Amino acid sequence: MRIIIEKDYEQMSKTVMDLLLAKMYTNKKMNIAITAGSTPKRLYELLVEEIKNKSDFTNVTYYNFDEIPFKKKGGYGVTMTNLKNMYFDPAGISMEHVHALDEKNYTTHDAYLESVGGLDAIFMGLGKDGHFCGNLPNTTKFGDLTSKVETSIFPRMYDIMKSEVGGNEEDIPDFYVTMGPRSVMNAKETIIFVSGKEKAGIVKEAFFGPVSENVPSSVFQLHPNFTLVLDADAASEIKDLID
Amino acid sequence: MRIIIEKDYEQMSKTVMDLLLAKMYTNKKMNIAITAGSTPKRLYELLVEEIKNKSDFTNVTYYNFDEIPFKKKGGYGVTMTNLKNMYFDPAGISMEHVHALDEKNYTTHDAYLESVGGLDAIFMGLGKDGHFCGNLPNTTKFGDLTSKVETSIFPRMYDIMKSEVGGNEEDIPDFYVTMGPRSVMNAKETIIFVSGKEKAGIVKEAFFGPVSENVPSSVFQLHPNFTLVLDADAASEIKDLID
Amino acid sequence: MRIIIEKDYEQMSKTVMDLLLAKMYTNKKMNIAITAGSTPKRLYELLVEEIKNKSDFTNVTYYNFDEIPFKKKGGYGVTMTNLKNMYFDPAGISMEHVHALDEKNYTTHDAYLESVGGLDAIFMGLGKDGHFCGNLPNTTKFGDLTSKVETSIFPRMYDIMKSEVGGNEEDIPDFYVTMGPRSVMNAKETIIFVSGKEKAGIVKEAFFGPVSENVPSSVFQLHPNFTLVLDADAASEIKDLID
Amino acid sequence: MRIIIEKDYEQMSKTVMDLLLAKMYTNKKMNIAITAGSTPKRLYELLVEEIKNKSDFTNVTYYNFDEIPFKKKGGYGVTMTNLKNMYFDPAGISMEHVHALDEKNYTTHDAYLESVGGLDAIFMGLGKDGHFCGNLPNTTKFGDLTSKVETSIFPRMYDIMKSEVGGNEEDIPDFYVTMGPRSVMNAKETIIFVSGKEKAGIVKEAFFGPVSENVPSSVFQLHPNFTLVLDADAASEIKDLID
Repeated sequence: MRIIIEKDYEQMSKTVMDLLLAKMYTNKKMNIAITAGSTPKRLYELLVEEIKNKSDFTNVTYYNFDEIPFKKKGGYGVTMTNLKNMYFDPAGISMEHVHALDEKNYTTHDAYLESVGGLDAIFMGLGKDGHFCGNLPNTTKFGDLTSKVETSIFPRMYDIMKSEVGGNEEDIPDFYVTMGPRSVMNAKETIIFVSGKEKAGIVKEAFFGPVSENVPSSVFQLHPNFTLVLDADAASEIKDLID
Repeated sequence: MRIIIEKDYEQMSKTVMDLLLAKMYTNKKMNIAITAGSTPKRLYELLVEEIKNKSDFTNVTYYNFDEIPFKKKGGYGVTMTNLKNMYFDPAGISMEHVHALDEKNYTTHDAYLESVGGLDAIFMGLGKDGHFCGNLPNTTKFGDLTSKVETSIFPRMYDIMKSEVGGNEEDIPDFYVTMGPRSVMNAKETIIFVSGKEKAGIVKEAFFGPVSENVPSSVFQLHPNFTLVLDADAASEIKDLID
Repeated sequence: MRIIIEKDYEQMSKTVMDLLLAKMYTNKKMNIAITAGSTPKRLYELLVEEIKNKSDFTNVTYYNFDEIPFKKKGGYGVTMTNLKNMYFDPAGISMEHVHALDEKNYTTHDAYLESVGGLDAIFMGLGKDGHFCGNLPNTTKFGDLTSKVETSIFPRMYDIMKSEVGGNEEDIPDFYVTMGPRSVMNAKETIIFVSGKEKAGIVKEAFFGPVSENVPSSVFQLHPNFTLVLDADAASEIKDLID
Repeated sequence: MRIIIEKDYEQMSKTVMDLLLAKMYTNKKMNIAITAGSTPKRLYELLVEEIKNKSDFTNVTYYNFDEIPFKKKGGYGVTMTNLKNMYFDPAGISMEHVHALDEKNYTTHDAYLESVGGLDAIFMGLGKDGHFCGNLPNTTKFGDLTSKVETSIFPRMYDIMKSEVGGNEEDIPDFYVTMGPRSVMNAKETIIFVSGKEKAGIVKEAFFGPVSENVPSSVFQLHPNFTLVLDADAASEIKDLID
């Protein structure tokens, strides 16, 4: 586990961009899974500015690692829509360099990844409950490959899904799909980046507490090439645990 | 997870030798941890024949991954003595190419490995109880680094230790040391090889059942570069699970 | 430059087999170009015995690096016919794991190799005149990519071609094709293996003399990952130059 | 050969910084040789701003690849002084992370590099005469390892040396030292970056003309992992040669 602590959200975003560019600039075919959501907002702004209209990165294929389909609306789901809006479209990245995981192809996703040589890197955020990708506590097991998770799995999930699809009840899907812990651990490199004081507690629990399915992200303590990038706030409870 | 099934113990040993030679022949510095015990007996016979008196492998440093000290006798412990007798001495490998983990240096073993760039590969056997290295059920947790395990941890351990030190009660140590699951998962490549019908059940349980601390080896389902080499007997209960 | 010296042809062949298996056993997609001719005869016998009917090597795609077409007879050329007879057929390797360079596709061969990620390794012999692949002195330049060489390029070439196609004048082609020095240098790893006293002189000249187009193989002094495997006879003139 | 063309010097410097950061951020020990001179001026300004006072890069060891000693003044030579002033000192990089090649240790430099696993990358400029490092036309041969070049080798060299040491004739050394073409080609990755219209001609000649010792940099056409970064001016004569 490598831990990089930056002074604030801006600098954390810049460093994650550097880690991502480090993959993109290797001159090798690269399969990279990236996260949607709010944490990477600044990351994608910086990245768009950096690579916009550059033709040098045809070696990169992008992947999402989870997807919430819009039940009624159809088309790209919540994650891919978000990635297109924040990153692919403004950066001028053609969708032919993107492989979309969705509710139709998830059962063959792991086999597909294996056929293309596996993920070289996966960039993820961390949930306040310790989740990564769509692996919330009590949804998946460490041994799970890419799976579906039913909206009915526990009561709170209905509200989460409702919020994710923008509040429209007709669009709440029966299930979402996510790469499971075992799928993600198969990636050659795993990166989690976290910002903010409200996540300082779970950072400590996930990466300095026991490895347990109750805190899904704790599994990365077991990954041979895992990097944790934090801003000072997110790192505020682990300062005494590292030198 | 890559699974290689060979027809018998002889051929399994030959294939593990090929995997080991594949590391040794890379022309890079290689840190390789290897197992003692009965399963690798034929492996080392073949390997000694292959590399005896060859000077081409100075790029390799060997490591043991657990050690049972002789309480009274002192000197090298059970594992290193076994490795010297089976492999290092007959192959003419100088101990300057071997880094011994022991009861004195185990607390700094993980930091040491990190300082030399980590293990490139670790070759292990599988216990009938699902253990790997010295990680028996109920001795270590997934999150443990290199640790000591007390002989008094549970009653059966006394008998195990007695047998390991050759039956001499005076030599039974107060504890043995082992790389923990987290330490082993840090290796770039992990390999387990298994022979014999009596292990067919645990092979199925460990690599096709749930990932659980009750079956320590199940953790390798989560390693991005894990190879399982079996003879036909050891593979007899998983035939219908693989194509 | 790594130099491995073995006591005789048998042991040299075994070591080259180990180097080849080291690539095959990496659990990654591997593009490997291999040599036809007389030097690898024992190599392929050993290898066939080792991997016959094993299904574990679907990660490997094989390539030839030069080809002499049969002008009248057509079909596979001299090199591919030879490789099929010595290795692919007896080892049970399907031609779907082989990419044949020939007189029709040579102009796009370098672009093709780039599209599949490049050659991971190329195993070659050494000619008494210092040639490698079809790069004889005065046929290609260091900067040449995959090229054709006219049979009329110099008088001796006619006899070489006649001998290569088995003596039948009607089958002597107008040109043969070969990966050029620049194409071969693009491979991630380059290996040359040499046997016999009659090549001891050129071994010294090529790898311990000046880098010069007059001795095409001298270019490998400039490759960052080059291995030279010799038997004692082939190494007899360089003993005082290495420690 | 990978070619990256940027619109101007600023953007070229930024891209070279990204390539350098890509190495630094790999989480592995990295041996990186870097260039002094005027071309990298902006590169180091950007880089200093980026990494100043960051403690995350202790995995990197820096190397110079040539050195011009001050005959009278002594101490660090021209290259290392320049690198210290432009990069190491303002970035807060301790000299314990720098390995200086100099006039005293050059005969063992290649052996030293081999002992530390070789250079992972070397970042170089290009001279108007096609030189790289201290390999000017008619000074070294392709097959040369790290060598000394006498100031008396040809008349113009005296003036070059005089200018390099700042005009003080007493400080003109009898010889300078440089990694030779063979030493540099041993690096796992080679990068040359070039700015300005006055170098557009030599860019074309070196990378699109014959491989020849008369244009030392042409040797990189033979390197399996070579990247050329140009600004639009430097690329102005090769536009029709690339797509």
